[in-house]
Amino acid sequence: MMNRRPLILVTNDDGFQAKGIASLAEAMRDLGDVVVFAPDTHRSGMSSAITTAQPLRAWKYKEEEGYTVYVCNGTPSDCVKLALNEFMDRKPDLLVSGINHGSNAGISVIYSGTVGAAIEGCVFDVPSIAFSLCDFTPDADFSVTMEVARKLSKKVLEEGLPKGVCLNVNVPTGDVQGVKVTTQTQGKWVNEYHRAKDGGGRDVFWMTGNFENWEEENENNDEWALANGYAAVVPVKIDMTAYDFIPRMKKWVL
Amino acid sequence: MMNRRPLILVTNDDGFQAKGIASLAEAMRDLGDVVVFAPDTHRSGMSSAITTAQPLRAWKYKEEEGYTVYVCNGTPSDCVKLALNEFMDRKPDLLVSGINHGSNAGISVIYSGTVGAAIEGCVFDVPSIAFSLCDFTPDADFSVTMEVARKLSKKVLEEGLPKGVCLNVNVPTGDVQGVKVTTQTQGKWVNEYHRAKDGGGRDVFWMTGNFENWEEENENNDEWALANGYAAVVPVKIDMTAYDFIPRMKKWVL
Repeated sequence: MMNRRPLILVTNDDGFQAKGIASLAEAMRDLGDVVVFAPDTHRSGMSSAITTAQPLRAWKYKEEEGYTVYVCNGTPSDCVKLALNEFMDRKPDLLVSGINHGSNAGISVIYSGTVGAAIEGCVFDVPSIAFSLCDFTPDADFSVTMEVARKLSKKVLEEGLPKGVCLNVNVPTGDVQGVKVTTQTQGKWVNEYHRAKDGGGRDVFWMTGNFENWEEENENNDEWALANGYAAVVPVKIDMTAYDFIPRMKKWVL
Repeated sequence: MMNRRPLILVTNDDGFQAKGIASLAEAMRDLGDVVVFAPDTHRSGMSSAITTAQPLRAWKYKEEEGYTVYVCNGTPSDCVKLALNEFMDRKPDLLVSGINHGSNAGISVIYSGTVGAAIEGCVFDVPSIAFSLCDFTPDADFSVTMEVARKLSKKVLEEGLPKGVCLNVNVPTGDVQGVKVTTQTQGKWVNEYHRAKDGGGRDVFWMTGNFENWEEENENNDEWALANGYAAVVPVKIDMTAYDFIPRMKKWVL
């Protein structure tokens, strides 16, 4: 087992045919054997959603030396669960998710399927990283993000990550000044719907909106890093307990 | 505006026709004016998923003095966003989600649509609580959970919650010894799929599994409280940053 090449699980939420996942898989092939296990179609905004009422299916789409691609009809979290429970011979040494077409900085960590997949890898104690490029276009230029992904993944393969912690990495467009370890920017989306009419004249609501940044001046957060040309890495905890509030709440007489 | 009755938004992930949400709305009518804004159907396991590629619809289903019901074709998070962005005249004083048919303790906080809705209320700075009863049956007895919900909701209306913190409340079946403020139990689901065949003889995978508790002996967590007859309240943070790991990670040369 000595000198065995690392085994790397690659997934995303834009679907197996997206340019972003092809770029990420290509970057990872320099580091190890790659298994892609990704949704059959667009699954953005799926957070950590799992499919409970319908059966899942998965099929092998491609296989060559050190590179296998599976496609699945589930969410990003379903893909990770199914790959790890049923399809992979051994636990991977690394999970990478993305490269997402579009930012997952700030509060988007909560809604992102790309991050959801990394969180799921983390549940399984696999060192896991979500990568996103701040460019929504299908033909975005992922070359700089591929470099960041290669460098950071190599480091995580060497160093590991603490139990219960995964990484949410966002990369700005254009050249990158460097990589900053940051916090999740506090803020929220506002004006989230565009009201329109369907063919029968009934109201429908399409998601849209703007991110309202509550920490414009904080140089430690991911939005600041991105605005200033840095790739931003937020370490993300899967234990969501608000430990600070427990002593105060225990004083409530319930 | 003095002595105005509190305005309470009620949602869930089992759909507007579930017994759990009817029970929760009934419990809340003692405390204030109630707006129910809930999914048209079963949306379990949806986490904080949002609908981005399809339009949302919502319609008024019922209206009487101090009690309005809207139904929406989206996820629990969509329901909260749409209610707050487009349907409610003022910001509610409280959001309650549930009562879920089934436990959302431990790692389930990550997958739960019931909790996802409370997290979304928290994003909007509305004091928010998710309630779940450890009984999956459609006709579960929610009377004890209604009492817990009434008491805890009254307290939260009086005391508020810290910015960025919501509550995940799980209630065991039968009588309850009391309410314990707890941490999120560390652990994960294992053996998550039942492999079966479809009508054409092809493999399909149905979600199933068992919770593997890594902290059996820890009396501070929610699974311990539930196993010992207490309702468990975990305060949940929406800032997922792993602050502890930042200094160590900053030492990585990237």
